[in-house]
Amino acid sequence: MTVRAAVAGASGYAGGEVLRLLLAHPEVEIGALTGNSNAGQRLGALQPHLLPLADRVLEPTTTEALAGHDVVFLALPHGQSAAVAEELGPDVLVVDCGADFRLTDAADWEKFYGSPHAGTWPYGLPELPGARAALEGSKRIAVPGCYPTAVSLALFPAYAAGLAEPEAVIVAASGTSGAGKAAKPHLLGSEVMGSMSPYGVGGVHRHTPEMIQNLSAAAGEPVSVSFTPTLAPMPRGILATCTAKAKPGLTAEDLRAAYEKAFADEPFVQLLPEGRWPATAAVYGSNAAQLQVAYDEAAGRVIVIAAIDNLAKGTAGGAVQSMNIALGLPEDTGLSTIGVAP
Amino acid sequence: MTVRAAVAGASGYAGGEVLRLLLAHPEVEIGALTGNSNAGQRLGALQPHLLPLADRVLEPTTTEALAGHDVVFLALPHGQSAAVAEELGPDVLVVDCGADFRLTDAADWEKFYGSPHAGTWPYGLPELPGARAALEGSKRIAVPGCYPTAVSLALFPAYAAGLAEPEAVIVAASGTSGAGKAAKPHLLGSEVMGSMSPYGVGGVHRHTPEMIQNLSAAAGEPVSVSFTPTLAPMPRGILATCTAKAKPGLTAEDLRAAYEKAFADEPFVQLLPEGRWPATAAVYGSNAAQLQVAYDEAAGRVIVIAAIDNLAKGTAGGAVQSMNIALGLPEDTGLSTIGVAP
Amino acid sequence: MTVRAAVAGASGYAGGEVLRLLLAHPEVEIGALTGNSNAGQRLGALQPHLLPLADRVLEPTTTEALAGHDVVFLALPHGQSAAVAEELGPDVLVVDCGADFRLTDAADWEKFYGSPHAGTWPYGLPELPGARAALEGSKRIAVPGCYPTAVSLALFPAYAAGLAEPEAVIVAASGTSGAGKAAKPHLLGSEVMGSMSPYGVGGVHRHTPEMIQNLSAAAGEPVSVSFTPTLAPMPRGILATCTAKAKPGLTAEDLRAAYEKAFADEPFVQLLPEGRWPATAAVYGSNAAQLQVAYDEAAGRVIVIAAIDNLAKGTAGGAVQSMNIALGLPEDTGLSTIGVAP
Amino acid sequence: MTVRAAVAGASGYAGGEVLRLLLAHPEVEIGALTGNSNAGQRLGALQPHLLPLADRVLEPTTTEALAGHDVVFLALPHGQSAAVAEELGPDVLVVDCGADFRLTDAADWEKFYGSPHAGTWPYGLPELPGARAALEGSKRIAVPGCYPTAVSLALFPAYAAGLAEPEAVIVAASGTSGAGKAAKPHLLGSEVMGSMSPYGVGGVHRHTPEMIQNLSAAAGEPVSVSFTPTLAPMPRGILATCTAKAKPGLTAEDLRAAYEKAFADEPFVQLLPEGRWPATAAVYGSNAAQLQVAYDEAAGRVIVIAAIDNLAKGTAGGAVQSMNIALGLPEDTGLSTIGVAP
Repeated sequence: MTVRAAVAGASGYAGGEVLRLLLAHPEVEIGALTGNSNAGQRLGALQPHLLPLADRVLEPTTTEALAGHDVVFLALPHGQSAAVAEELGPDVLVVDCGADFRLTDAADWEKFYGSPHAGTWPYGLPELPGARAALEGSKRIAVPGCYPTAVSLALFPAYAAGLAEPEAVIVAASGTSGAGKAAKPHLLGSEVMGSMSPYGVGGVHRHTPEMIQNLSAAAGEPVSVSFTPTLAPMPRGILATCTAKAKPGLTAEDLRAAYEKAFADEPFVQLLPEGRWPATAAVYGSNAAQLQVAYDEAAGRVIVIAAIDNLAKGTAGGAVQSMNIALGLPEDTGLSTIGVAP
Repeated sequence: MTVRAAVAGASGYAGGEVLRLLLAHPEVEIGALTGNSNAGQRLGALQPHLLPLADRVLEPTTTEALAGHDVVFLALPHGQSAAVAEELGPDVLVVDCGADFRLTDAADWEKFYGSPHAGTWPYGLPELPGARAALEGSKRIAVPGCYPTAVSLALFPAYAAGLAEPEAVIVAASGTSGAGKAAKPHLLGSEVMGSMSPYGVGGVHRHTPEMIQNLSAAAGEPVSVSFTPTLAPMPRGILATCTAKAKPGLTAEDLRAAYEKAFADEPFVQLLPEGRWPATAAVYGSNAAQLQVAYDEAAGRVIVIAAIDNLAKGTAGGAVQSMNIALGLPEDTGLSTIGVAP
Repeated sequence: MTVRAAVAGASGYAGGEVLRLLLAHPEVEIGALTGNSNAGQRLGALQPHLLPLADRVLEPTTTEALAGHDVVFLALPHGQSAAVAEELGPDVLVVDCGADFRLTDAADWEKFYGSPHAGTWPYGLPELPGARAALEGSKRIAVPGCYPTAVSLALFPAYAAGLAEPEAVIVAASGTSGAGKAAKPHLLGSEVMGSMSPYGVGGVHRHTPEMIQNLSAAAGEPVSVSFTPTLAPMPRGILATCTAKAKPGLTAEDLRAAYEKAFADEPFVQLLPEGRWPATAAVYGSNAAQLQVAYDEAAGRVIVIAAIDNLAKGTAGGAVQSMNIALGLPEDTGLSTIGVAP
Repeated sequence: MTVRAAVAGASGYAGGEVLRLLLAHPEVEIGALTGNSNAGQRLGALQPHLLPLADRVLEPTTTEALAGHDVVFLALPHGQSAAVAEELGPDVLVVDCGADFRLTDAADWEKFYGSPHAGTWPYGLPELPGARAALEGSKRIAVPGCYPTAVSLALFPAYAAGLAEPEAVIVAASGTSGAGKAAKPHLLGSEVMGSMSPYGVGGVHRHTPEMIQNLSAAAGEPVSVSFTPTLAPMPRGILATCTAKAKPGLTAEDLRAAYEKAFADEPFVQLLPEGRWPATAAVYGSNAAQLQVAYDEAAGRVIVIAAIDNLAKGTAGGAVQSMNIALGLPEDTGLSTIGVAP
């Protein structure tokens, strides 16, 4: 099978990572690359690390440019995907790296994004219960947010197994690429190097309802989420520290068993051996998630820590993994669990 | 007043920061500098940033070397302070930057440090209720741990005002200097740059009982603490994200009022204006703590985020501030609230 | 003496550093703070590390705002200083952190800056031969560029002593604050962390004629300069590696003797003991320059390496040092040779 | 063809990178992994980014462990390779990532390494004139040093084309992984983050004679090299700024033409379009070298800047590229020119 893929938004960080992964994908041929303000420029000037595509020229993001491909990846600002997908028609596999089709609840969407809800597409986190089946053969994929990827992998097994109370407290650190490539003063290297800072505190971050949606589905009851994202002085990576009160009678053995069972056959989740803890460096550039669980008996809490690469498993890697499923390819085609370290 | 001060452990990070601050202190004259493995070396080779002391030679850490000073700062490995203090006698002000005399509960000490408890000295976090009075005129000071400094400042007002349930969940990121200057592979620059990783997860970090002690005292009831420290790719700084379930009926106004009241007269705590959040870069090298509070109504939790410099307010700055109180000097003598940024 | 100082351009990196240093200056009272796009904002939102000035509000940069001060620091874009200075009149000490008055050769100015030459003011690098005398009592000071500060300190003694051929080859690494606070994509944290890159290669960097001017003056003959600046993944600091062919017959002893003599009485230049090399971390936030010299006999070259803080000694510290001289204050008033490390 | 490969020194940075690349190599099966102090440990604890090998256990480095493989990669301390190679016999392809067999001049070896010279093997920098032919079918490969890889690629075309005087001045910045994984205080994250510092100044770095060897061979006359290495705050990457006086009559067009010709058919060298400059981030994890050339007419110098990943093209990538040639495989088998950025 050779799949012809276009990427809309090829000059940004998400689009660039999609291209990095597609270049290594044996069944994909890279077609049109589009951008808006950067249309007309060579990719070499915009993504200097993608040498094999250095001479490719960005086209404007139009239906014409994107037509005639088997797969179209959208790495666009929120709110633009619905119109593009509509125009591409139902036979093209559209993989949306944006937020537009992630949420099932229209009210949540409107509250957090302030615009009408476009709909809901199959959710591209195959490790979640039921997600894989929904992706098989689908022509539409909503790629999860980077934080919800890490947090949902970290906590769904505890909730699915009924081991944790439905009130999660999550603090996550993200590399700066999660904030995108638009030049803003607080994202300057001078500002972020040597500094940790929070943002979107108090439940206002747009990824919060997505986490609630996933964890509530796993728990079979509404789960509240206190989520604090922080910006860390590194380009990539998310380290999510996820805790919840343990259900009465929990033992550390039960907890570990639930996670071993949940991820026994998952190619991209590594439950670390006891005594070792995740580090974002170990998944740099890789599609793997590293997890470790602990039961803090004195505090009565379950603690699960997950490390992912926000651009890889957290965005482009999850997108390609889901595309593989949708196309009937082996799920790990073209994807790696090998990080670039040190 | 001219105070003659010695520093034991002058080649480490805590000792170096004590010296950096003492050099700027108008009432202090720096006397003996001691070390163990580095005795005989010039300070210029060990602390190249302390130019005015470049030609000073480290002596071995002995009672003879430390005798004859008004103040002795101890920046020694755990367990060594008691013997030194004993030999120096009751008239010398001994400021212990180590953990030996922080805990009031001998069982806690033995559980977390594995050795007999040496005792309890007045606790060098003047902002805590009652702490300042205990420091006045004291000849012994136990400098708090860096994490407990950030966390206690962040949460004691909520507990003292009865606004939070006694179960705190804390995730903190620390710069690597918190792990000291001993060369260990996981602290190499190659390992830590670009990486976030947790350690001491599940209530096993030695600073946990110290936080519990401080928060329980503020609350007037036992507070449980789930504490997860993480190592961040920066030399200095702690960002502590501290949350607790809100007591029924809490309002955001009550919460903010409690913090405004708690820190109204504190020279080294800056409660940020609403809408701004702390960043470790803003307190780099400074003795200030930056704080912000939020009430996440959907999750029902109080969130307080504190940023400090782990070596300054978190260690050496807190030590000098407490020394000033003990000596009857103005509390801010020689200390700055100005960070070095960007 | 109490000197009232205004700072124009108080929201940028140079202006912020001037303020950081003035806050610690015992003879200075900080008056008006001005900005352009940020006028009307509180300084706390723009320079969150300057706690004592958090509530000060930026005024627009006008003659009215700047009038009535003893000293006015200009941290403005190139080309704006002449008009402001003119309006302030001849009795106010104007310290220009910009480039406008650094070059003596109008043709050089026009070639590198593309506008008419405004003139030449006394040059604020007191360590250069003759510079101190020109600054005494002056009402105008041209603060040197950050690279020329490091490079001129590194090489003028070799040229003044006739030890090096008049063809210097210089490669310098700068922290990102040297590129300013304007948000540009290539200065994003995501781009600069983990990366070294050159810019302005081939003699086109605007600091090149300034270096040539200083080194030629020291040598008494025209010195050519091959200068390559590189951007390093750190907020502050310049490490300048400066080499030149040795004059015939040079010995390592002669070389060292020339540097020892040149800096014997300089409070802000530390010629390191043999065997130690400069590091930018050691001068972080300090007004000191660290230097070391070597004679590579096999290659026949003199190598001098200098480390400074580009914002401190390289800009604001040099400005305050020169202001002290101009005002007749002790040269080191309010300035420190103590770095913040690690 | 399936090639069975062993790696001696699998717990270090060079060994880990060899494994990362071999895991992606379609013709290689990974056999024995050996270490010394880490023998008996699982690789997952030592190289947590190599998930597919997490459960492999390190054996001690013995002839027995390494026997029975088609290829043996040696990532050992200097001086140990000769004995191992001897014992493995002449039919095994031995790829030495260490320095032992790089130099052709025994006196140079003894001067810089202080031990008897072991000999000279075909040199694994295929882009050098004649190097590829020497590697074809060879059973021994000396992998170049990381700095000499960058510097030789940067300057050999200028020397081979007779465009530069035989006195090169080189300043290079390296990521910290170049200093290895042994825990030393000056390599701690606390020390290196935020700091640039030189080392091995004045011609004493062991890579100097290797550069001289390569450049002199290209020039057909002895080339002197002034080489200053600096440590940069990043895990990986080398940026080498290489300059030499231009031969009389040089034009920018001649210079560029020489480089275009030299690298026209090289799969791993990207001569950037005019106006763009290399950055180490663009080659992070990739086997590519990025180069740009300039002729600084005012200073009369050729300037060539090269960026490589010190562990990839600078060590393990060069090793695999050379192995491919020696085995008769397509040279780029299993190697990538795609960097991981941002």
